[in-house]
Amino acid sequence: MITLTTDFGLSDPYVAAVKGVILSINPQTTIVDISHDIRPQRIEQGSFVLAAAWPYFAPGTIHVAVVDPGVGTKRRPIALISTGSLFVGPDNGLLSAALSDAQREAARDGPREIPLPSPIRAFILANDRFHRNPVSATFHGRDIFAPVAAHLSLGVSPEALGPETEEIVALPPLRAVAEADASLLGHVLHVDRYGNLITSIRAEQLSQPSITVTIRGRSVRGLVRTFDDCAELAALIGSTGFVGIALKGGSAAEELGADVGEPVVARPN
Amino acid sequence: MITLTTDFGLSDPYVAAVKGVILSINPQTTIVDISHDIRPQRIEQGSFVLAAAWPYFAPGTIHVAVVDPGVGTKRRPIALISTGSLFVGPDNGLLSAALSDAQREAARDGPREIPLPSPIRAFILANDRFHRNPVSATFHGRDIFAPVAAHLSLGVSPEALGPETEEIVALPPLRAVAEADASLLGHVLHVDRYGNLITSIRAEQLSQPSITVTIRGRSVRGLVRTFDDCAELAALIGSTGFVGIALKGGSAAEELGADVGEPVVARPN
Amino acid sequence: MITLTTDFGLSDPYVAAVKGVILSINPQTTIVDISHDIRPQRIEQGSFVLAAAWPYFAPGTIHVAVVDPGVGTKRRPIALISTGSLFVGPDNGLLSAALSDAQREAARDGPREIPLPSPIRAFILANDRFHRNPVSATFHGRDIFAPVAAHLSLGVSPEALGPETEEIVALPPLRAVAEADASLLGHVLHVDRYGNLITSIRAEQLSQPSITVTIRGRSVRGLVRTFDDCAELAALIGSTGFVGIALKGGSAAEELGADVGEPVVARPN
Repeated sequence: MITLTTDFGLSDPYVAAVKGVILSINPQTTIVDISHDIRPQRIEQGSFVLAAAWPYFAPGTIHVAVVDPGVGTKRRPIALISTGSLFVGPDNGLLSAALSDAQREAARDGPREIPLPSPIRAFILANDRFHRNPVSATFHGRDIFAPVAAHLSLGVSPEALGPETEEIVALPPLRAVAEADASLLGHVLHVDRYGNLITSIRAEQLSQPSITVTIRGRSVRGLVRTFDDCAELAALIGSTGFVGIALKGGSAAEELGADVGEPVVARPN
Repeated sequence: MITLTTDFGLSDPYVAAVKGVILSINPQTTIVDISHDIRPQRIEQGSFVLAAAWPYFAPGTIHVAVVDPGVGTKRRPIALISTGSLFVGPDNGLLSAALSDAQREAARDGPREIPLPSPIRAFILANDRFHRNPVSATFHGRDIFAPVAAHLSLGVSPEALGPETEEIVALPPLRAVAEADASLLGHVLHVDRYGNLITSIRAEQLSQPSITVTIRGRSVRGLVRTFDDCAELAALIGSTGFVGIALKGGSAAEELGADVGEPVVARPN
Repeated sequence: MITLTTDFGLSDPYVAAVKGVILSINPQTTIVDISHDIRPQRIEQGSFVLAAAWPYFAPGTIHVAVVDPGVGTKRRPIALISTGSLFVGPDNGLLSAALSDAQREAARDGPREIPLPSPIRAFILANDRFHRNPVSATFHGRDIFAPVAAHLSLGVSPEALGPETEEIVALPPLRAVAEADASLLGHVLHVDRYGNLITSIRAEQLSQPSITVTIRGRSVRGLVRTFDDCAELAALIGSTGFVGIALKGGSAAEELGADVGEPVVARPN
């Protein structure tokens, strides 16, 4: 099984080209779309969506992710083996979705190349036997990542794809910073379709369930249990395990005028 | 085969989580998206789209529908068996798409709990053996409906899911009200991508093919046969069997300033 | 395998009806969406997207395309056999995506019926044994094209679908016009999700790699190699083999105020 996470959208021929390439190599594989609606070039958003979705797939699934503003430059195409699953895409931080927060700790101050934490392994996709020929400078999703994923689904060993590497580019851990005064400093990771804000404050970082969340100068009470409890803006643990801010029958994002990146603070009551 | 009808959209990780859960339990099943673009929390729209789509699938198909503003509250999760097909989702009216107009007659004055019409049967999804563990208060699509559907696709009997119930919440029948003067009072059920208005006036409710439709103070002539006959606003029988209003090369919805819920009257000429 | 290219969008029940009909006839077939987000009734855009996607699928794939403003009128429903692949849809120019530029040369001055170039064959879908019954006047995607494609996927011979025809409607070739002064006159074929403009100037039409592209009174330098080289508006060979205009971190379409159809001229430097 192969999943796809891209910023290609659904109006253009790009997703179909990727699927056609995969299915021409392995007609038996099942392709599942995670999302093609990542905002153009937003690596962090792509990484968040991938991180929130891939754990629901069975081990052995091959996850292809392509948000790739640096396509055709010297950024490396890689394959990552983590916890029994495979990840294929550009080495620009996107694939750090495969790593735990602890494993991404070295990137806490910003995106950077970090030593690959054991037992995760990564391979540079240098062996053009598994690429389309020729490889364009503008569409590695079709020319490198799709055929590599298809070959992996046929049983090709990751070792055959190219030389192993000991580093990958990682994005910061998806969690808030704990302050001395017990407050948690985070930011908005994602705004979902309902206008719910998903923050980087993880449920397990909270020392107690009664909190006040401050965002854009507003105080939001929490935690409530369900969206139905959000008649006024309220904080709750969303389905991805992060503190969310929701408004029943409305959009918390619109109500607050908040978007991805907005700072947020949680304090115990 | 399992179909999905939700208001999750395609930008977030929610649809993928549902698919991952289903495919982890039954990797052999085929999943077909009906739509994930139901407007957020719009149960009626979700029910309409499901009603318009499921009859084209073979008997035995499992239809999962999730538009679920009451997730985590006491609204019941249910499975319905109707005409050889299975329906899984919240008991909030959405699944009345499985019922005929006649079977929904008791809800003609508005959404309400009605006695389940024979031979349709329904079961409350109480047996947590078929749920994810733990079940969140915010995402039953992933934690209850997806795994239940996957187990049903593996042959689990609906009786095993939980206790049978004799009532379900139903939305009003999808048809106009016939007045003494032979006029039909309906409303706009759906606005499609072309801007066509789909009304609740069913083709079989018309006593003759020559009608005038009144909407927002405008008189629209009908019936015409094809969209090509709609050089001016015109009424025709759309592909879902309802009277529609269309405008060739334009949007009837924009031209009329009409949206879902707008009252509409049809009178024989 | 069956692909779908339509202007149905993803909010309505139309795509699901098509898939349900196909899968009811052949539950074993794999359906791949090329796009359902073709702008409503834009035959040229549908044909471009299909032309850009289908070559990546294996021979024998059945490509269903439906952008069909003339549904229910006398425009013919057809199936085309070209280069080992099958194409099913309305005979309104959409399926000329199956033809090469050379094969579409007779339509260079505008959409028209042209003699079918050998060895391509086409059949009129007249045999209602392979249609739904009854066939609506408003949804041939569901009632004719879907069941025909499903039967083809089961091995039905194209000859059985109806009488052979020697003509099809073709759109103009997807390439620029070469002028005596070595300039190439083209237009914008497509604006992709990133705001990149895809022009009708084919890579192989360029006599040298150093060009200046003029569009909306602006001069755009080219060719650059990657999107990363487009810090200012620049021209490059996009992944579909056409000259594109891109802007790194922004939208070339917005920057230029250009949309599909906008004239563009390329001149060697």
